[in-house]
Amino acid sequence: MITIHAIGGYSQIGKNMTAVQWKDEIVILDCGFWMEKVISFENGSASELELSELYRLGIVADDKEFRRKYGNMVKAIIPSHAHLDHVGAIPAMASNYRGAPVIGTPFTIEVLNSLMKDKGKKIKNKLVKLNAGSSYQVSKNILVEFVYATHSTLQTVMIALHTPDGIVLYANDWKFDEYPSLGRRTDYDALRKLTPVKVLISDTTRIGRESKTHSESIVKDMLRDVLLWTENKENLVLITTYASHIARVNMIVDFAHEMKRQPLVLGRSLANYIDAAENCGLVDISGKAKVCGWKHQIVKELKRAMKNRGNYLLIVTGNQGEPNAVLSRMATHEFPFEFRKDDQVIFCSEVIPAPINMANRAYIEKNLKNQSVRIFKDIHVSGHASREDHRDLINILKPKHYVPTHGGINKIAKAVELAMEMGYDLGKNVHILQDGQKLEIK
Amino acid sequence: MITIHAIGGYSQIGKNMTAVQWKDEIVILDCGFWMEKVISFENGSASELELSELYRLGIVADDKEFRRKYGNMVKAIIPSHAHLDHVGAIPAMASNYRGAPVIGTPFTIEVLNSLMKDKGKKIKNKLVKLNAGSSYQVSKNILVEFVYATHSTLQTVMIALHTPDGIVLYANDWKFDEYPSLGRRTDYDALRKLTPVKVLISDTTRIGRESKTHSESIVKDMLRDVLLWTENKENLVLITTYASHIARVNMIVDFAHEMKRQPLVLGRSLANYIDAAENCGLVDISGKAKVCGWKHQIVKELKRAMKNRGNYLLIVTGNQGEPNAVLSRMATHEFPFEFRKDDQVIFCSEVIPAPINMANRAYIEKNLKNQSVRIFKDIHVSGHASREDHRDLINILKPKHYVPTHGGINKIAKAVELAMEMGYDLGKNVHILQDGQKLEIK
Amino acid sequence: MITIHAIGGYSQIGKNMTAVQWKDEIVILDCGFWMEKVISFENGSASELELSELYRLGIVADDKEFRRKYGNMVKAIIPSHAHLDHVGAIPAMASNYRGAPVIGTPFTIEVLNSLMKDKGKKIKNKLVKLNAGSSYQVSKNILVEFVYATHSTLQTVMIALHTPDGIVLYANDWKFDEYPSLGRRTDYDALRKLTPVKVLISDTTRIGRESKTHSESIVKDMLRDVLLWTENKENLVLITTYASHIARVNMIVDFAHEMKRQPLVLGRSLANYIDAAENCGLVDISGKAKVCGWKHQIVKELKRAMKNRGNYLLIVTGNQGEPNAVLSRMATHEFPFEFRKDDQVIFCSEVIPAPINMANRAYIEKNLKNQSVRIFKDIHVSGHASREDHRDLINILKPKHYVPTHGGINKIAKAVELAMEMGYDLGKNVHILQDGQKLEIK
Amino acid sequence: MITIHAIGGYSQIGKNMTAVQWKDEIVILDCGFWMEKVISFENGSASELELSELYRLGIVADDKEFRRKYGNMVKAIIPSHAHLDHVGAIPAMASNYRGAPVIGTPFTIEVLNSLMKDKGKKIKNKLVKLNAGSSYQVSKNILVEFVYATHSTLQTVMIALHTPDGIVLYANDWKFDEYPSLGRRTDYDALRKLTPVKVLISDTTRIGRESKTHSESIVKDMLRDVLLWTENKENLVLITTYASHIARVNMIVDFAHEMKRQPLVLGRSLANYIDAAENCGLVDISGKAKVCGWKHQIVKELKRAMKNRGNYLLIVTGNQGEPNAVLSRMATHEFPFEFRKDDQVIFCSEVIPAPINMANRAYIEKNLKNQSVRIFKDIHVSGHASREDHRDLINILKPKHYVPTHGGINKIAKAVELAMEMGYDLGKNVHILQDGQKLEIK
Repeated sequence: MITIHAIGGYSQIGKNMTAVQWKDEIVILDCGFWMEKVISFENGSASELELSELYRLGIVADDKEFRRKYGNMVKAIIPSHAHLDHVGAIPAMASNYRGAPVIGTPFTIEVLNSLMKDKGKKIKNKLVKLNAGSSYQVSKNILVEFVYATHSTLQTVMIALHTPDGIVLYANDWKFDEYPSLGRRTDYDALRKLTPVKVLISDTTRIGRESKTHSESIVKDMLRDVLLWTENKENLVLITTYASHIARVNMIVDFAHEMKRQPLVLGRSLANYIDAAENCGLVDISGKAKVCGWKHQIVKELKRAMKNRGNYLLIVTGNQGEPNAVLSRMATHEFPFEFRKDDQVIFCSEVIPAPINMANRAYIEKNLKNQSVRIFKDIHVSGHASREDHRDLINILKPKHYVPTHGGINKIAKAVELAMEMGYDLGKNVHILQDGQKLEIK
Repeated sequence: MITIHAIGGYSQIGKNMTAVQWKDEIVILDCGFWMEKVISFENGSASELELSELYRLGIVADDKEFRRKYGNMVKAIIPSHAHLDHVGAIPAMASNYRGAPVIGTPFTIEVLNSLMKDKGKKIKNKLVKLNAGSSYQVSKNILVEFVYATHSTLQTVMIALHTPDGIVLYANDWKFDEYPSLGRRTDYDALRKLTPVKVLISDTTRIGRESKTHSESIVKDMLRDVLLWTENKENLVLITTYASHIARVNMIVDFAHEMKRQPLVLGRSLANYIDAAENCGLVDISGKAKVCGWKHQIVKELKRAMKNRGNYLLIVTGNQGEPNAVLSRMATHEFPFEFRKDDQVIFCSEVIPAPINMANRAYIEKNLKNQSVRIFKDIHVSGHASREDHRDLINILKPKHYVPTHGGINKIAKAVELAMEMGYDLGKNVHILQDGQKLEIK
Repeated sequence: MITIHAIGGYSQIGKNMTAVQWKDEIVILDCGFWMEKVISFENGSASELELSELYRLGIVADDKEFRRKYGNMVKAIIPSHAHLDHVGAIPAMASNYRGAPVIGTPFTIEVLNSLMKDKGKKIKNKLVKLNAGSSYQVSKNILVEFVYATHSTLQTVMIALHTPDGIVLYANDWKFDEYPSLGRRTDYDALRKLTPVKVLISDTTRIGRESKTHSESIVKDMLRDVLLWTENKENLVLITTYASHIARVNMIVDFAHEMKRQPLVLGRSLANYIDAAENCGLVDISGKAKVCGWKHQIVKELKRAMKNRGNYLLIVTGNQGEPNAVLSRMATHEFPFEFRKDDQVIFCSEVIPAPINMANRAYIEKNLKNQSVRIFKDIHVSGHASREDHRDLINILKPKHYVPTHGGINKIAKAVELAMEMGYDLGKNVHILQDGQKLEIK
Repeated sequence: MITIHAIGGYSQIGKNMTAVQWKDEIVILDCGFWMEKVISFENGSASELELSELYRLGIVADDKEFRRKYGNMVKAIIPSHAHLDHVGAIPAMASNYRGAPVIGTPFTIEVLNSLMKDKGKKIKNKLVKLNAGSSYQVSKNILVEFVYATHSTLQTVMIALHTPDGIVLYANDWKFDEYPSLGRRTDYDALRKLTPVKVLISDTTRIGRESKTHSESIVKDMLRDVLLWTENKENLVLITTYASHIARVNMIVDFAHEMKRQPLVLGRSLANYIDAAENCGLVDISGKAKVCGWKHQIVKELKRAMKNRGNYLLIVTGNQGEPNAVLSRMATHEFPFEFRKDDQVIFCSEVIPAPINMANRAYIEKNLKNQSVRIFKDIHVSGHASREDHRDLINILKPKHYVPTHGGINKIAKAVELAMEMGYDLGKNVHILQDGQKLEIK
């Protein structure tokens, strides 16, 4: 019998935390923040909070009951990738599972290290780097295998747990991208070898979107037109995107050189993620661009850029309009910078649909317009699978049981709808779990 | 003094018809249908109606007053491209301007011929083919020059009228596409040579959309993923798109060969547009695909396709869910065809936002879903300029006067807003015209 | 043990049909059409179709399997009220449950009779009239009790089934309206006497709407302003509303008299519902207004009305823009009628959100605007409970088990969300059923 | 000749300021804030800013050029009502028009006094109280007449300026409400006596909404149901609404007594507006309710209320979720208060559609839901006229010229659309003005 413990991520989009149990061996998959709470309530400084505060604010999953009953059976904590809603709570929570190593891809582990260094936290758990395509025996009866998956950050994996009662495939955040700008395609061969899996646990983030998610290569085409084919010779060109989306940052840096402009990468979290990626030998952005994480450096570079607007392409933090990010500080003159008529600001992102983001973005866009800046938005494709991608994954894996995760009841209902279309029965082989519930599969 | 007569297209999106006057010499630019009325009220058979009926139903511009006062001064009728909202009314209305030749690019004239042949109508006006990049002296003081522009049909032009009081540039439907799948870029050099123009008349269709319109090359990327990277080996693959969008049809045919499938192009209007394009030597689709315009041919091919679903890629009419088009007839079994689970239907278009289209599309999508078909939608980019493209065009041409067209007051208000941002003054050098009004420019 | 058979209405909004079983005694609750299918596919003439066609088109619930296994245990068929999605399939399906009487409130039975008379159908089942507040022993162990509920048609009831294992309360379409324009409040005392019920089966139609549904008395206030306080002395005033909403029709007729205008009620279904209501002695509309159901009568009255526009208030069918209804025929001149500038058309309804309705309504509104008619819309409140009303009902009844119905998975997910907020557990005491499933409650 | 100076309010919704000139006599109508800027940029403390800052932030109209050229001709400053977007800039700007008295209804003047007292500002201009229905000779040739109008604050007037060349009627914020909860109907008789006016200047705030705006009496019905007919005996009931909407506050206080609860009115701006209204003898709220404007009072009452939740009805500030208002401070425990499960919070307002409001409201609603509070929203009707009300006003006044105000180009385009429907011609007798432009009418 396999037991799925839905600790977090089944009642909202965030604080992902699932445990898979075979007899007295348990593996925890992901351990993240609820980002909406982080942003709304705490202005982004959640990492400095004590665990008791994180519980109280609902920023992390409530694992207290689980820990009391099953804590000593936990053999490993395995984050699927480096996004904070999957990895963010590890510094605060992993210590409570003493013997359990944290196992992740090299980039994920580097980001985790960087998180802890930044906040002065340190866990005692062993950190294990495991490459996609490799396996690791976490306990007597459970073997973990990492399957490469494309997503909007580097070295994301689907996690296959081989148990005596079959395979649990945990695919929490993935897309099918045949032409990624960096890295490889999702490892279809590995997936086909796992077929049929016993249980598929898969995210529902964008399962409500019809069709198929487009390739990141489309962002490249969009950027090409906006950067190379707009009347912008004399103007400043500035792009803001997700700091963790290293593949995209790298692509933008290359565009800068094609435009004969010097790329300036400005912002603390950008510098951190680039650092982690370079430590793993995945990119060499700092060899091609000036990367500045500290305020005094940023200010200095902005002054230079103002003098020769046509010579630079700026890549900065602040795509959601976060008040503390570089773009906002430039727009509000907190940094000594003046935009000029027809300067170009490109949002290489979409607004993450939470009220705080919508308000922040609306504010900064109005602000920039008042300064006569030209705005280009939604130069972006998602890192998440759409409905037809999900159908393809299910068709490939032919899971006996399907457990949608990473969403509230409304999102999960969409997954159930798809599953029923494909012949699954609710309650029999497609299951709705809520945070705090568990499911036993014979 | 130059006079702009706003005959049609200034109070709704459709029935475009503008006249430009210098002393007693007049040129009519475009002469089209109001497509929403055509579709809603007449099920698409507007071409067979008498002119009096077309007036009564509001399908064509009301040129009666204009004709009475100025008809004998008209020296030419010049459609900008082959879409029906620009060219559709010529068979019914051109005869009333006897001496005036109809001047268009070769493809536009071919489509016009095909329209008249199809409906048994014939005008006595001379038909003149003029290539983009060429000029024609239409009257003593007016020289017309065709400037190549990218758009969603072939051989679209911006029309420059050179008069003794300056140049009127008529840009009614255009986009900037640097990587068109067929044809060339908009002729920037020609535009720069015209600068500064006296009057710019430009369409507002998508001026409310922020940013820049994406390139057709993005559709190619999207199609590549949907066609080549979906689990579809055994299934029928069907694409529906705009019949007039020959560049896209040609691209899809090429994809079929890459997939090792035989392309079948089915539908009357598809066959007509392909015929017109091949008569001009622009494509050789019928050399690469089976093109069928007649019902008995279509039925025969559908039967073949059903037997070996994996061998064919179908390209058919009906992207708006039109009940008489091939896709609808397949879905409702009016044609002897059965969809099968996981057959793939790809809408390479967007829903044109009129209630009748929304209802038709919703109906066919539900119908297809009931037959367990997989639907891929919005594999499309627009053929119209967005707000930042308009800003670039105005920056290039530096017009003394700007006259937005092709929209009601709400669309035109968006153009005025942009112009005011750029320093224009309403009523002074940016003008709001309504159907039936005229504007005198000294 | 009580068994709930979800025959229809659990996978879409429509074709309601639930069976409740105690040992070998079964009661069927509701037996209706899927109206969206009726309207889209069949232009409203579903009643004339054979049962096999109704199955094939998905217009009625698929009860074949249920009937084969349990048909002979059915002791009664009980519609909750007179709307077609609850009662429409009885003429076609009741005969298959031979011994079972059809039990409804007098108005519901009258409407059923009228349906059968109109279409020349006749069932052999006994028809039993049972008043709200009364009970009926349908079988040895099951007693049915009718509890008065407010809704948008007359004599709606919640159905309480008293079984040896507790009470099943079936509340499929209801609202709490403390100031109904006709009839009484929902019978709170009766509900409180049933507390706690074993199972609550309740509809989810508007459970996604926050707050509380407003009272019909608000429609009265809205109408008062639109009718008495608009500049309309010389103009025709026309109202269209739901034919089954007799309370509202009656209210409008009274307004006509207050305006010193003669009320003309025009349309077949209006005449039928009024007839049913008058047969039950619930209203005397035909004593206060001219009611015309037949075409020649309608035409005659329209001619009269055109001559003295200020003297009449018209109440007609066609609030969803149905092409065959009176309003559409007036607007398209199919009936010999001409609207005049500033005539007033009042939609005392909301658009039921199906694409066909949206298209029909958009079409007729444009048509009327072209005739310079003044349009007043959404003079309406819903007949369905909102989220906070549902919370109150659950608080009153304190059900051990809660089974949401009358919606697809997305609607039902909203009900589950509410239940979980109130302390229910999914799968334990709040249940998601799909059409064809059954639930056993010990 | 009459000249209309569009100083503010013609390029956005806010900072209303219009001047009407006849020869060398000028009257300024309204002088207000742009509230969106006030809220977004300054957290509501705009009144403390220096004029130079108000200009720089765009919070007030830019009257510098106007003042330089025409300042010495200004004979009076006349606010139409007490809302801040009409009256807010008077404390900062009136002093620049030395000789000009400020003329308003008694309530408007009282609110102005309260604004100045609160902020320690004082103007030297004479303050003149003029009742609706009365007239005042402001200069040799201009007589001002106040016409009573219903709106969402007390003693709102339309301002009729009688000049030798005809009447200018300034109707900036009004509705037609035949059953206001306090005060009278709009003075139709007075309006009819003015017919035909030379110029109508009228607001466009909700001219895009179809139909007619509902009466405030509907709010009364809605409140009745929510307050008297919800399961709330043991729970706290709290309502938040606009502080300036004294009629509604008064109505809620009366409901409290009907519920046998003591009304507690908490919040600074509520106390101020009530004070102003009582100074004019318009209401006696403090005789019926406890009104607390200061923090220590509020805290004390909240403590009392917590102990006997069923005994009080709270009326508090914060309907837009403003972080500094009472409701937000209660929800975030900044005030010593705890909500309890099933406490009832009623938003007697709509979200004013600016991003900051949407974010604030979303935040507080989530916060309250987390505390298991029951939320009732949109218990509200607008204080602004809809499209059909505007049609009626134009029909009554038959203006020779129509100048829409209080909106950007998109809003004003809607007014132009209506006017053209009614036979007006753009540029001839319906005019689009932008801030800073003027219009001369012969």
